[in-house]
Amino acid sequence: MDARPSAHLPTLVLDAQSIRRIVDVVGRDRLMDLIIERLRSRYIDLAASPADSRDRDGFRYDKPALGLIEWMPTHEIGGPVVVKMVGYHPTNPVQRRLPSVIATTSMWDTVTGHLVAIADSTLLTAVRTGAASALATELLTDDPPVILGIIGLGAQAVTQAHAISRVRTIDRIVGFDVDDDVAASFLDRASFLGVEVVLTDRADAVLAAVDVLCTCTSVDIGAGPVVADGAHRPGLHINAVGADFPGKIELPKALLERAFVVPDVTSQCRIEGECQQLDVRSVGPELAELVRSPTLTVPYRGRLSVYDSTGWAVQDAVALQVASELAELHGIGDRIQLELLPADPYDPYGGALARHLLLDPRSSSFPQTV
Amino acid sequence: MDARPSAHLPTLVLDAQSIRRIVDVVGRDRLMDLIIERLRSRYIDLAASPADSRDRDGFRYDKPALGLIEWMPTHEIGGPVVVKMVGYHPTNPVQRRLPSVIATTSMWDTVTGHLVAIADSTLLTAVRTGAASALATELLTDDPPVILGIIGLGAQAVTQAHAISRVRTIDRIVGFDVDDDVAASFLDRASFLGVEVVLTDRADAVLAAVDVLCTCTSVDIGAGPVVADGAHRPGLHINAVGADFPGKIELPKALLERAFVVPDVTSQCRIEGECQQLDVRSVGPELAELVRSPTLTVPYRGRLSVYDSTGWAVQDAVALQVASELAELHGIGDRIQLELLPADPYDPYGGALARHLLLDPRSSSFPQTV
Repeated sequence: MDARPSAHLPTLVLDAQSIRRIVDVVGRDRLMDLIIERLRSRYIDLAASPADSRDRDGFRYDKPALGLIEWMPTHEIGGPVVVKMVGYHPTNPVQRRLPSVIATTSMWDTVTGHLVAIADSTLLTAVRTGAASALATELLTDDPPVILGIIGLGAQAVTQAHAISRVRTIDRIVGFDVDDDVAASFLDRASFLGVEVVLTDRADAVLAAVDVLCTCTSVDIGAGPVVADGAHRPGLHINAVGADFPGKIELPKALLERAFVVPDVTSQCRIEGECQQLDVRSVGPELAELVRSPTLTVPYRGRLSVYDSTGWAVQDAVALQVASELAELHGIGDRIQLELLPADPYDPYGGALARHLLLDPRSSSFPQTV
Repeated sequence: MDARPSAHLPTLVLDAQSIRRIVDVVGRDRLMDLIIERLRSRYIDLAASPADSRDRDGFRYDKPALGLIEWMPTHEIGGPVVVKMVGYHPTNPVQRRLPSVIATTSMWDTVTGHLVAIADSTLLTAVRTGAASALATELLTDDPPVILGIIGLGAQAVTQAHAISRVRTIDRIVGFDVDDDVAASFLDRASFLGVEVVLTDRADAVLAAVDVLCTCTSVDIGAGPVVADGAHRPGLHINAVGADFPGKIELPKALLERAFVVPDVTSQCRIEGECQQLDVRSVGPELAELVRSPTLTVPYRGRLSVYDSTGWAVQDAVALQVASELAELHGIGDRIQLELLPADPYDPYGGALARHLLLDPRSSSFPQTV
């Protein structure tokens, strides 16, 4: 073996304990606020600093379990590449006491191809999905206290309610789930919000009673919508979070056709979101455009609106950036020498393991902007 | 925070030191032999246990450095999903003393979506590329000792020569590189083979003198071929390893048109391999087909043949499987709780960090078949 030292380029690993520590040290409110604000900034920056994002793609299967594993890649032009790998296995909670969504997000430096960071994104995915709903809710509703409805009281319901609570005062939450046990346990899971939660046994009762509605169900393909069209308040805003698969929908077509519909990624929403049900001419601007130009929303204030949320790698890049910066700031996370970088780059078998600092500032640390 | 314990599903991390330890403990010869043999078995198994592989895709850019970051996904139907993420930055060696190829390979369980393993693949990529060339060489040449030629004496040259040495007795290596320093250093890097190495200053002198030729250059797009058509032995076999990008080629078209050309992945080779230069009717069967049906090669023994190697995720899956099994066997590698799996799968913020064994045998360990 070659005696010369190997190059050293650390990879930041944010594992379960690191993510938990970030939440504990920073607090869930501040973490949510940071991700909401950084998502807002990134959406505004997109005009000057565009992202090249690929369509979500992956493997879908029925065996050994119904599920899919997908990749969501994005490249901040001139900056890093970020890929979220996400598994969705709807039988996980009941059959294995595991979350249906398990995800990791990784970031690569485009000077060297070095893997800069890998982080658990099971929690971060839920938080950034909530953060995007918060931005949409803020843009498309007025400021007085709201009654929040939630249809589907699983994991996403917690972070949706939390995110909305950071941008609007919530008077009361009205919730419905097809599973009574899941519904009952939501009272505990949402108790940190300090908001009264009222459970109902009918989805249409939620629709009728609220100012803001989040739908975040695991409805089966072809089984939607999860609520019938019916009476609602005139200025109702809906964050439709559950649909993320061809044939999977949560909202009635007639309701969508009356609404101002704002997708996260138009092309993706037309394949796997509520926009599957709409002619492209009935689809409004993307959320990022509204964030950049809030006056676009003026004609729609006080009217029915829907944010069609299918998930976007740019949101995951923001969540990973925030988590990485917080980890740097608080000394959280492991920094490992993942990649074998021999002292002689032409000698794959060569090189010792001693550490030799060959740090590219771009690739080894994050700006301390948190 | 919820006091119930979190689920525990470990992720095996094979970092630089782990990969180095596997090489040290097992030996580079045995590691190469295992990957050659497991690649052979997997190619034979593909008929019964097919793989769904996606075309390599990624981001290519000129700034901040010329390079690309790509993903290579494959799904063993009914089994795991494996994705190699690979960066190729040709200025790395000269400007940063880093390998041009830096890669990691990850494997997911399709019962839960859990990330089973992530491993450095900088070395493993070079080894599996060599192993595939060894299979092609074994199938397409006769058994007597060979003179091996190498054009392009960088990192891949080491593992190409090593792999060929495991299936054929090498009398002598004749090498050429456009960079004299790289050529000179190859003598050291290949010394572990115990084979005489003769350097020449002309690529055509290599072509003329050898029984087996490996081309493994970083030739620029549009700058190929790296050797002019000319005299060669009648039964010459060429492993063309360098081309992996549209417009990047190593061999002259006239030579290819005379040869039996065996691609690793036909569709990919026609976009970024030597097969870019050929009509599809001039392209032979894929290497995996020859491995399954070696009699297909009979008409071509003793004639000019080319293995067009662009890289296939199935090879990376095999390399990761072998490395993971060796790591299990020898207690190498770290097992971390990467994914945050709250005790209540519906409560993203909940769950303690205590370990609760919730092990799915499919997803937490590897069969001990090494």
